[in-house]
Amino acid sequence: MINAYAAMKAHGKLEPWQYDPGALARDQVEIDVDYCGICHSDISMLNNEWGMSSYPLVAGHEVVGRIAAVGADVTHLKIGQVVGLGWHSDYCKVCSTCGSGDHNLCASAQGTIVAHYGGFADKVRANASAVIPLPEGMDAKTAGPLFCGGITVFNPMVQFDVKPTDKVAVIGIGGLGHLGLQFLRAWGCEVTAFTSSDSKAAEAKELGAHHCINSRSAVDIEQAAGKFDFIISTVNVKLDWNLYLGTLKPKGRLHFVGATLEPLDLNVFSLIMAQRSVSGSPVGSPATIAKMLDFAVQHDIKPVVETFKFSQINEALAHLESGKARYRIVLER
Amino acid sequence: MINAYAAMKAHGKLEPWQYDPGALARDQVEIDVDYCGICHSDISMLNNEWGMSSYPLVAGHEVVGRIAAVGADVTHLKIGQVVGLGWHSDYCKVCSTCGSGDHNLCASAQGTIVAHYGGFADKVRANASAVIPLPEGMDAKTAGPLFCGGITVFNPMVQFDVKPTDKVAVIGIGGLGHLGLQFLRAWGCEVTAFTSSDSKAAEAKELGAHHCINSRSAVDIEQAAGKFDFIISTVNVKLDWNLYLGTLKPKGRLHFVGATLEPLDLNVFSLIMAQRSVSGSPVGSPATIAKMLDFAVQHDIKPVVETFKFSQINEALAHLESGKARYRIVLER
Repeated sequence: MINAYAAMKAHGKLEPWQYDPGALARDQVEIDVDYCGICHSDISMLNNEWGMSSYPLVAGHEVVGRIAAVGADVTHLKIGQVVGLGWHSDYCKVCSTCGSGDHNLCASAQGTIVAHYGGFADKVRANASAVIPLPEGMDAKTAGPLFCGGITVFNPMVQFDVKPTDKVAVIGIGGLGHLGLQFLRAWGCEVTAFTSSDSKAAEAKELGAHHCINSRSAVDIEQAAGKFDFIISTVNVKLDWNLYLGTLKPKGRLHFVGATLEPLDLNVFSLIMAQRSVSGSPVGSPATIAKMLDFAVQHDIKPVVETFKFSQINEALAHLESGKARYRIVLER
Repeated sequence: MINAYAAMKAHGKLEPWQYDPGALARDQVEIDVDYCGICHSDISMLNNEWGMSSYPLVAGHEVVGRIAAVGADVTHLKIGQVVGLGWHSDYCKVCSTCGSGDHNLCASAQGTIVAHYGGFADKVRANASAVIPLPEGMDAKTAGPLFCGGITVFNPMVQFDVKPTDKVAVIGIGGLGHLGLQFLRAWGCEVTAFTSSDSKAAEAKELGAHHCINSRSAVDIEQAAGKFDFIISTVNVKLDWNLYLGTLKPKGRLHFVGATLEPLDLNVFSLIMAQRSVSGSPVGSPATIAKMLDFAVQHDIKPVVETFKFSQINEALAHLESGKARYRIVLER
């Protein structure tokens, strides 16, 4: 039996709940969960905000732990090996998207917490293809948030070929943004943080920002007209996106990893006149996750976390919902 | 003196008007205009729709003619040479954008019909850098529309690295779209035309489309879900853009060259979940125009034009405004 914390209904408190995972499939592994980050999307799923939750729901998809068991066909992971598991716990591995290395865009990918029991538990199972070893030298305690928050901001840097000579900006300095600042600084870029919080400006600079702009000041934003090659937005609120489009250089890109529910309302002239792009992306492929982990070790990039015991999981969720987490929460035994 | 057709005010009929261009600058050329295409943006400028018109206004920016005079510093163009001139008649040539080969995005580029007298005239002047020789074998009579309409649809294929293996679509089969179909077919792509006009479906196939989809049928569009790598929209009306986003594959791009005035209303989830991009672009650089002309000759790509005499210029403009032009209008002597 696996001992989990489950929600029995939308908005329900998490409570201890056991389930029998059955026999381990030939291509699966079982992981002893040591740490699990909490992501906003865990809350979205627990509350059925996307209409695809089923209960009991075991959330948790920023897992770090040790391989406890391997299926008969698994040869590249060993019992005891320290690994991580993120948003996806399996891919079809046969579609053209998977065949192109874009497993994260596979239409049949299995979500770790969508019709599958996640990492708020003592054990979790996943297909071996979705489980990535931690590189030597990586701190297991803080690594969990890299597997969803981290890869979400790192992946577009790879996908859209951000260059060390680029001027870049991050909108929103939170769970995702504080990792974006670190990655982009280490990437060699000149980095600007857009934040509405004065208290975060100093921290943003410590995390890697060369400059900060107050995202509540249209005047300050307008003064950055034509400045950036690449902007990544991590917020889930509606901003004046055309104002931000105007801060892009010719050929610049405004990239969304934060899912605002309201439509983007973009001025097509601003796109046309300067050949600008707007785009979005979800998490990354296993290969890109592995690349990110190596880069993080090389540059000593770590999520800044607050830790809670698994037994305090409801307090931890409330803290995240309060918006006060600096910057990511990790559950530990 | 140069004999032109000018509008004296917004919405005014064009009338014969002479101006003295003064001494030819050292880096300019003067062109004897043999042909000039008419573009929708000529009408927009004549009617001051963009608020940047000054009168008398001489429109016309799809010029084909012969070099009549060269400035003292011009060495690469010769008197009598057959050349073309498009939307831009000069670039700053010193900014980082020009320095990167993106002259068409230069913030200081000189429009041919913006605070400058264009090609609805017997002669027109331009900086030599903006004047492109027609390659051997190109039909001068039909070449004019390539210099604005043609490059507008060709340029994004180069900029965004459209591949011969891509599945592509063109929204709107008109002055721009009918060239897009030809270029994309010759590029090696599988080409779909979205058109609201049944009468254009057969013509679209003659122009290069393998498939046609009725753009008035949401059901037909939905059936193309996940099909395209690249869609280029040439229309200037509001469509259900999220419906078209849904027809893109993972990593697909919806690209705008038609300037709709209404904001795009994009669903950010659709961008994020499949790493889709939305973008826009204006005309192309001189180097890309030259590349397009060579490609057009190689593949026998020609604008389909209706011709009017310069003396019938007001009738020609009325025909364009009626929406009945198939597909582009060229003025001739």
